[in-house]
Order: sequence, then C-alpha cells, then structure tokens
Amino acid sequence: MEGVDHLAHERNKSEFDVDAMKIVWAGSPHAFDVSDRISKLVASDPGFRKDNRSTLSRKELFKNTLRKAAYAWKTIVDLRLSEEEAAKLRFYVDEPAFTDLHWGMFIPAIKGQGTEEQQQKWLPLAYKMQIIGCYAQTELGHGSNVQGLETTATFDSQTDEFIIHSPTLTSSKWWPGGLGKVATHAIAYARLIVGGREHGVHGFIVQLRSLEDHSPLLGITVGDIGMKFGNGAYNTMDNGVLQFDHVRIPRNQMLMRVSQVTCEGKYKQSDVPRQLVYGTMVYVRQTIVADASCALSRAVCIATRYSAVRRQFGSQNGGPETQVIDYKTQQSRLFPLLASAYAFRFIGEWLKWLYADVTQRLQANDFSTLPEAHACTAGLKSLTTTATADGIEECRKLCGGHGYLCSSGLPELFAVYVPACTYEGDNTVLLLQVRDMSCKVSHEDCFSAGVQAVQQETSRYNSLYDSSRAFNAMSLRCSKSALLEAFEARAARMSVACAQNLSNFDNPEEGFAELSADLVEAAVAHCQLIVVSKFIEKLQQEIPGKGVKQQLEVLCNIYALFLLHKHQGDFLSTGCITPKHAALANDELRSLYSQVRPNAIALVDAFNYTDHYLGSILGCYDGNVYPKLYEAAWKDPLNESVVPDGYHLYIRPLLKQEIRTARL
Amino acid sequence: MEGVDHLAHERNKSEFDVDAMKIVWAGSPHAFDVSDRISKLVASDPGFRKDNRSTLSRKELFKNTLRKAAYAWKTIVDLRLSEEEAAKLRFYVDEPAFTDLHWGMFIPAIKGQGTEEQQQKWLPLAYKMQIIGCYAQTELGHGSNVQGLETTATFDSQTDEFIIHSPTLTSSKWWPGGLGKVATHAIAYARLIVGGREHGVHGFIVQLRSLEDHSPLLGITVGDIGMKFGNGAYNTMDNGVLQFDHVRIPRNQMLMRVSQVTCEGKYKQSDVPRQLVYGTMVYVRQTIVADASCALSRAVCIATRYSAVRRQFGSQNGGPETQVIDYKTQQSRLFPLLASAYAFRFIGEWLKWLYADVTQRLQANDFSTLPEAHACTAGLKSLTTTATADGIEECRKLCGGHGYLCSSGLPELFAVYVPACTYEGDNTVLLLQVRDMSCKVSHEDCFSAGVQAVQQETSRYNSLYDSSRAFNAMSLRCSKSALLEAFEARAARMSVACAQNLSNFDNPEEGFAELSADLVEAAVAHCQLIVVSKFIEKLQQEIPGKGVKQQLEVLCNIYALFLLHKHQGDFLSTGCITPKHAALANDELRSLYSQVRPNAIALVDAFNYTDHYLGSILGCYDGNVYPKLYEAAWKDPLNESVVPDGYHLYIRPLLKQEIRTARL
Repeated sequence: MEGVDHLAHERNKSEFDVDAMKIVWAGSPHAFDVSDRISKLVASDPGFRKDNRSTLSRKELFKNTLRKAAYAWKTIVDLRLSEEEAAKLRFYVDEPAFTDLHWGMFIPAIKGQGTEEQQQKWLPLAYKMQIIGCYAQTELGHGSNVQGLETTATFDSQTDEFIIHSPTLTSSKWWPGGLGKVATHAIAYARLIVGGREHGVHGFIVQLRSLEDHSPLLGITVGDIGMKFGNGAYNTMDNGVLQFDHVRIPRNQMLMRVSQVTCEGKYKQSDVPRQLVYGTMVYVRQTIVADASCALSRAVCIATRYSAVRRQFGSQNGGPETQVIDYKTQQSRLFPLLASAYAFRFIGEWLKWLYADVTQRLQANDFSTLPEAHACTAGLKSLTTTATADGIEECRKLCGGHGYLCSSGLPELFAVYVPACTYEGDNTVLLLQVRDMSCKVSHEDCFSAGVQAVQQETSRYNSLYDSSRAFNAMSLRCSKSALLEAFEARAARMSVACAQNLSNFDNPEEGFAELSADLVEAAVAHCQLIVVSKFIEKLQQEIPGKGVKQQLEVLCNIYALFLLHKHQGDFLSTGCITPKHAALANDELRSLYSQVRPNAIALVDAFNYTDHYLGSILGCYDGNVYPKLYEAAWKDPLNESVVPDGYHLYIRPLLKQEIRTARL
Repeated sequence: MEGVDHLAHERNKSEFDVDAMKIVWAGSPHAFDVSDRISKLVASDPGFRKDNRSTLSRKELFKNTLRKAAYAWKTIVDLRLSEEEAAKLRFYVDEPAFTDLHWGMFIPAIKGQGTEEQQQKWLPLAYKMQIIGCYAQTELGHGSNVQGLETTATFDSQTDEFIIHSPTLTSSKWWPGGLGKVATHAIAYARLIVGGREHGVHGFIVQLRSLEDHSPLLGITVGDIGMKFGNGAYNTMDNGVLQFDHVRIPRNQMLMRVSQVTCEGKYKQSDVPRQLVYGTMVYVRQTIVADASCALSRAVCIATRYSAVRRQFGSQNGGPETQVIDYKTQQSRLFPLLASAYAFRFIGEWLKWLYADVTQRLQANDFSTLPEAHACTAGLKSLTTTATADGIEECRKLCGGHGYLCSSGLPELFAVYVPACTYEGDNTVLLLQVRDMSCKVSHEDCFSAGVQAVQQETSRYNSLYDSSRAFNAMSLRCSKSALLEAFEARAARMSVACAQNLSNFDNPEEGFAELSADLVEAAVAHCQLIVVSKFIEKLQQEIPGKGVKQQLEVLCNIYALFLLHKHQGDFLSTGCITPKHAALANDELRSLYSQVRPNAIALVDAFNYTDHYLGSILGCYDGNVYPKLYEAAWKDPLNESVVPDGYHLYIRPLLKQEIRTARL
C-alpha cells in the first residue's frame, strides 16, 4: 500500500491552483520557502520523532523534551540557521519546552523593559543560552490581576540590594513555564517597596539556580506544579512553583527602562513612555492570533481528510458507503471551521501589520493608535482562541470514535492548545477590555462624571454608533457589501443597547459590572465585524493563481453567513434583516458548502503540513488510515504481553471464585 | 487549617433547606440513603484511592484498575451488597473498567436477546463472574452503521456450527471495552449467512480466551487499541481490537430470542417482536441521560465552590479582592450550567419513568409508544451529552489557569465524559433520527410516495404542528406559561419550516440529505422544549422543604431564559417574541442570577458529593484550596529529585557551550 495516494481522486477534483494557495496561506513566497524547508527538515530527522509521547511516563516525557530542546539548539548551531529559521524549527518541533519562554518571554522582557546597559549585560548570555530564563509573574492566588501580586521587592540602601520575598503561601509564583526544573534565571514580578513606600509591580532579574551544579540558590524553593490536561501536551513543560525567602539581588537587576530606583533609594520614572508595555502586549497577542490559525487549520486538515476517507451509511446495492464529507450535517460543522482557519490567517496577517505600524509610530512618539490596537488585539486574541479551542474539539468529534484515540492527534492538539484561552489574559476579561477601551476612546471620562442626563445619553449612543463606524473606517476600507453592513449594524446596535442600559444606572461602575455579560457579547460582535471586514479587504487585493481568489471568496462568504446564522438573533434585532433574509442566507450557506466540497482536500493541502507536524493517523496525507491505525495499536505498552500483568493477582481469582481469599 | 470550613460564610447565606434538596436531587429518601452510604464507604476505603492516576504509566494504571475492580467485587461479596448497592459502588469507584461492559452490556444483551435456555446457561456464570463478557459490535471501518458491519457468521450444517470470520482489515472489531486484555467471552455481531444467503446482523456468544490460562483461543487475535484522550480517563479501560480467523462456535451460541437458525439450516423469525431491540436502546440511553446530570453537576460543583474561593480584581482600599462568583460574567456562564444540571436530573427521572412505562406496555404487546420513546431518548441523549461535555469544559475554563491542572479534576472529567457524545449513537446522527421518527410517527410513509403536491404539504405542516403538540401533550401536562408557549411555537415553527423546505425537493430523500443540518436544529429545539416542559411539570408536584421549590423555580426560569437568549434568533423568527421581549428576558435573567448567588454553594452541596468522588482540589468541600494545591504539586514524579534527570546530558551542555560535541 506504501506510496498509493488514497485521496488522489479528491485531489483531482480541485478547481484551483493549490501551489498558488500555499503561497497565499504562507503569506509570501519567502515565508513559504522557509516554512516548507524547515518543516521537512524536522519531519525527516528521527531526533524529532514525536509519535511515542502519549505512552511515556512524566519523567521520561520530560527528559525526552530536554533532549529535543538540546538537539534543536544543536541543529540550529550546526546548520547556522537564521533567527527566522530557528524560530520555525522550534515551531515545527511542536513540543512545549522551556525554550519557548526563554526566547518568547525572557529575552523580549529584557529587550522591552531593560536599560541599554542591562541589555548589553544579559542579552548576549541569553542569546547563547549560557543562562536560561523564565517569566515569573502569576502567583498561586493571583492570575489575571497583576496589580494583586503579593511578592515583594524591598530596597535595602545599606547594601544597594533588593530583597525578594514571598510573604504568603498564595504569593508563591505558580505556572511559569521552564521554572520548575530548568531555568537558571527568572524575570520575577514583585511589588516594589522603597523606603517603606510601595511603587506598584516591577520586574526583576533573579538568578534561581547555580550555573555550576543547577542546585537552587539560597532562599529559593522551586519545583514543578504537577500534571496538566492531556497525556503529552503541556506535560513536556516544567511549569513551576517558586518561593523566595528574602533573596537578595543587586539593585541593577531591577528592569529599569521605565522606572528606576537610585542608590540613594529614590524612585523615579524615566522619560520612556509607559505605553511601551502595551506595545509588548500587542506583540504577544498578535502572535497568539497567528498561532490560532495554525492550530485550527491543523485540526481542520485532519478532520477534512478523514471525512473523505471515512464512509458511513448510504450504501446503494451493496456498493461502498457514502464518504461522510458528503453529508450536509458534516459539511455544516466542518466547512465553517475551514473558513475560520483562513479568516484567522488573514486577521493574523493584518495584526502583524498593525503591530509594525504601532511600533513605527511609538518610535516617533505617536501613541494615538495604541489604545485601539491594544483593544483590537485583546478582542481578537479572545475571539480566535475561543473559536479555535472549540473548533479543535468539534473536529475531534467530526472524526467519530477514532478521534478519541491519541493516534488521531486531536486529543493532544486540544489539550496543548486550550490554555491559549486563559493565558495572556483570560478571554472573558479581555473582551471586557475591548468595551472599556472603545468607550474610553470615544468618550474620555464620560462615565467618571457619574449620573448622566438622558439627553446626554442620546447623543452618546449616536456618537458611540458613529465612533464604532469611525473605529472601523480608521483601519478598514469601507465595504459596500450588504453583509458587511449587516455586521456593522449588529455591532453598533449592540453597543448602543449597552450604552442605553448603562444609562439606567446611577453609578456607571455598577452598571458596567451588572451588564458585563452583555458588554462581552457586544465586544464579540465588534471583533467578528473586524474579522469579516479584513477578509473582505483581503479579497480586494490582487491574488494570483488559477481559481484561488474564487475559493477565498466562497470561504469568506461561508465565514460571514455562518456567523450570521449562529447569531441570527443579534441580526434580526437590528431590524435590518428579516427572518426571511435569514432563511435565505441559510439556503445560500448550503449552496456554498456544495461549492467547497470538491475543493475541500486541496484547501487543506494548501496548509502544506507534513505528516510529522500533523501528528495524526486520521489526517495522513495519503489517506491510508486503517492499516496505520491497526499497526499503531499494537505498539501500546499493554500489548507487550498477551496475558496482562495483573492477570494472576486480579483476574484469575474472579474467574476461579477465589475472590474472598485473594490478596488485593 | 484542618477542619476549618472556608466556605461556611457561603453556606450560612443559603435560603433553603439543603437536606430536603438532597432528597429531591437523589430522587427519593431511599435513593439518597443508598447513595450517601455507598459513596462514603468508597471514599473512606484507601483501596479505592484515585488521586494518583494521572502520573501512572499505562501499564501501572491498567493494573491498578484490575486491582480495584477485583477489590470492588470482593467488597460487594463480603458486605453482601444488593444489586442496587453494588451498582452504586461501581459508580462511586469512578473509574472506567471492564466490569462496566460486563454488567452494562454483556449481561443485558443475553437477557434481551437470548432465549430462556441461553439465559439459563450463561447468566449464572456471568452473575458470578466465572466468565467475563464484552460487547463486540463496532469495527475498525464501521461505527454508527450496524448494517455495514463486515464480520461474517456462516452456518455450517455439517458440524452444526457457525464460523465467525473477519474477512478484511476494516472488519476487525475495534473499541469494545474489556475486550483488549480481560474478557473471556464476547457478544460479537456479525452478518449471518445461512446456505449462502445473508440474513443481516445478529449477535453471537464467542469465547475469546482460555478459562485456564487466559490465552486467546485458536483463530482469535486480540489486543488493546492504544492510548486515548486524557492521562487517566479511559486509559484504565482495555478497549480492544479483535480479528476472527474462521472461529467455530456451536449453533446454540447465536442469540436466538428474535430469530433462529435451525440445525437444518433454516432461518426463521420467532414471534418475539423485533421492537424489543428498541426497548434496550431506550434503556441504555436513559442511563446515559442520568449520567449526564451526574457529570455536569460534578463539574458545576467544582467550578461553583472554587468561584467562591477565588478572588480577582476589585480590591477596595487594600481589602480582599472580589470573589469571582460575584462577577456577572462568571454568573452568566456558571449559573445556566447549574440550572442545566438540575434540568437534566429531572429529565433523567422522567425518562426512567418512560422506560418503565414502555416496558410494561411491551409486556402487554402494546408497541404504540415505543417509537416516540425511542426518538425521545435518542434526542435527549444527544442534547444532554453535548451540553454536558461543553459544560464541563466551560466549568474548567471558569476555574482559570488552575482548571488546567489535573488536580482540579476537570481535565479528567472532560476526557472521561466526552465519549458519551459519540458512543451509543453519534449525537448528530441521533438528532436526525428524532426528526425521522417524528415524521414517520405522524406521517407513515408520507415521503415514500415521492413528489408531494403543495396542498398536501400545507396540511402536512398543520398536522406536523399538531402532532408535535400531541406528542408533547401525550406525556406532559400542558403548561399555560408564556415561556412554554414560546418554546412550543419555536419548535413547531422550525418543524414547519423544514417541512416547507422539504416540499421544494422532488426527491424527499435528497431533501432530507440536503436539509439535514436544519433538521438537526429543529430536533434540538424540540428536545429543549421537552426538557423545559418536564422541569415545569416537576414544579407542579408538591416539593417539601423550606424554600426548596422556590430555588427550583429560579433554576427552571434560568434554564429556559438562558436557552431563549442563546437561541434568540429562532424565537424572534416565530414572531411571537419581539426584540424588546428578548431584551426584557435578558434583564430578567440577570436578576435571577442575583437570586441564585447566595444559594449557589448550597445548591451544589445538595448533590451530596464526597471529596473522593469529586476528585478535585478546587472543588473540595471546605474550600481550603491553595494549601492543598501547593502540597499536591510536590508529589509529582518530577519533584523526586531537585536537579532533574537529564541535566547532565541535555541542560549542562547548553549552559557550558558544549552543545556541538554533546551526545544527544
């Protein structure tokens, strides 16, 4: 069977240039080239094998990840990979590891919050991995609310040191990846206390372990926080717990780019704007959105290929059963996810542009677009990660029973992905920020004045409506399409309704609290509008390749109409759409599914994922699913012996009616 | 801290008699007593400890389950537990095991499909566990569609035997629990072939393993299918693969209650009605609905208690932060799930009654209510399991980052629960049966005639509408409440709309296929109507206990209004509700959340779950979460050594810049 493409008949059906679509998906010919080259390099190297993860014990699993991380670094050094290639390599190794935090949080924190001097001292060490860093912010009792952190950093002017201390159990650092067993250093966040006065939470570089024998330094209690969701998943990561017992560090290890403590014990702000912190958040969240499209597309690729392989019911005259991908119920669940994967890809691209734009402006001391960019990335981070986590699980269910096997790859993909809904800002909390922000943007302090007269309110709704339009118009070219208008009307109406309801409260803060669930829904509507409008905008560009643009147009319409169907009530409530329209939209959706159907396999081939990266028997490129499933089953440790360990002790006494005297 | 109840202030707030609610939840004082007694028995016996599951390797995990299953049986025998108590004990042991299939599928199949003679031969052996059985139906290439199974059972009149054979790879039995390593016997389903003629799929009792040494019998290839979702979860179960190579069994091992093969090779039907099969399905699915309310309530209990413990943001003047349960966003996600848990409990109770009623009727040869009961349980199985799986995951997210730790209990609860959406009928497929059935019930063969004239259609919608009313009226007392009417109108409108759209197709089968996604939505609407109406009906009964009924009324309204809000579009489309009504309903929902808030902890206490059964540090009764989390972390195997295994090989070479010469 080796070498036979069981999905060839599907690939022959496609009506567009798959290679051209691969470039669109990758973002550019260069991006495609790097991605293609590095993913194949990883896939072909047995050192990066990952199909055995689910049966390893925690210790074996972790040790194996240490090996891979070292091996990845060796590969990067040996092949003299560029920074871009190195990042891609870590991405395709596809295993959470301490290096993620070292490169993704520790180094960026020093770059963003460290002074020139601090950067010169620490970055070369970090770049060569002579030190390994982690990012110790969250505590056992404190997650989202950074201002609630309890760890203290008290300045001792006698010795020119800070004393880092964990005053309570709940102040134990908890969750930081790489902390548990590997990191030699941490950026630890703590309340700064100088001369008995508190100055809020700041970051400090703290050495945790000896560079000679890796043992924790004096005053440091550190360990792993234990097992997490899934068998492999994030259990390859040493998320850690850390307690400081009056740990002393030199004064120059406080990250001092934005605020400083002098040797005399004076706290002062530098002239570097604090807004830079938001710039970093925009960066981090933008990468999370890009990752969402990767994770969702991966799940969709698996479910789509297996839906073409799998047959159930509908056999005519003893012939083969129907491919499940031909069922409308399957299509109506799968194709909107396929469309979402593409939609998220393009919104990720746009956010990347937005971040570059904001950075340029920040360098020119222009902070005008930062609040919107911040709200926008917060909202889109929330929208895309929630949809992706749900989408992966839906893809798993779309594979039927076999999706529950680890060899399908989907359980692990879900378990490893789903923390994205919680880290870097819980998704619900983030959505509230979207509304907070957009209100603040359009009505500086409008709530701080307290009671609002009804007349004022009325004009507020109007301006809110206008500002939400203005907000979109700012960055999006206005589309004429009726669909886009419907999304605009829906988002505006929900904002206006919230504002109207808010006006019924004497105390606006109380109003915000009381109506927060509605505010979250309005924020979702707003973010969906952005995704739809950016997809439409993408289609206004020139896109080369036979049939490529047509396919994207179908997907864009599916994405928008699917949302319209799902949130029908919101749209009907605007009055700009009637139940009849909604029903017609639903009919249209069905016909769009038929247009996608022949192209479905090619549309997931365009992601250009190797079988190694997919890590799924159900999603394998050649569709030769069943022999591979059968073969994989026998590798389970339980199959090492025909009669299971435990038979004599626990099964035989049952069968032989000797249970009362058995030693159990 | 031991012994201090950190949630006492919450418990003091409650406005109803928790002990009385415990009886309501359990169903009766007797049920409460059994449940309470057995759950405490299991919780207090270290032999049933389960907090170490997530770190065990597959082999250790499985062996430990074998021990527990034997220990459970010993306990049952030693204590002379009744059948009811024994079942409860297995339930509270809370670990999937081969015994589930032995008692839940193997024995019932023999009882349901075996002749008197077969029952007399096999049941005593099974009851004493002298043989251990499994239920081998699904195959590698065939899940939902039983008629598509490929395994054959060919009658050999020479020897008066059946030859059981797996003709292809895809015909390998795949998934049966208990098959992989334990079962000595299977009920195997195979296509019956007698004298060269096929007679559809039938069940056969096949011995798999020697009763002496447990080795597989000649012609039997059997093993485990490998790792599944989650670390513990269903990996305690030996879901198996099985191939038959011309395995011979005596003729009297075909289950012959409904159809028989004589020694002369004649195939004949007995006078026992085939509908009995549906009776069994009603039974199995009814238990699945009951399990849904258990699993959901368990997740809700954990999330509710931890939401009262956890504080985030909102600190005033340095005081404690706000309990997250006080946030409306938290309430609007959590309380509908609390209400759903109660709703599912009552619908489960009703289905139990329905099953008893159907069984009684079947015994009197009255099959009239069987199709409705079958459609009803199919639909409610689908509705409740989907909502429960999603609800568990939502509860996990509601616990923030810590919900991702195995010690929260929620990852394993999700992983172990979610197969319920797929087994015993994939949820989407089942919903199509609801529509199929209700159409068939009201319009015998109405689609078989092909093209339907428009006039006929019109009357059909009307009768559909009527029949849906009649269907409800059959078993439900009609409520006058506007809410119920809105749910009725919605369900009817969606049925009518489907029927209208179906009439546009020349070929009704094609119409069904094309519109299946809409049919599924209509079926959901129909099932939700049933749940709401049964909850309302429950409230029409007398319910003793101070404040108990009032609490249930609040929960009933939350359940209904939450659905109305979620599916607003469906309701608005009927025209019987305006956007203004919908907004008012939403306001009402908010005020209901405020009414639940002080009673939330007591409402989950009413489930009467032991800390052992909950298996969650976040959900522990006394709310002393953080010290317990901290303590549990140190038990992870990674913490056995301070410097991790692998440091010298894989970390030190990085730090010492010796990676190029390292052996990796």
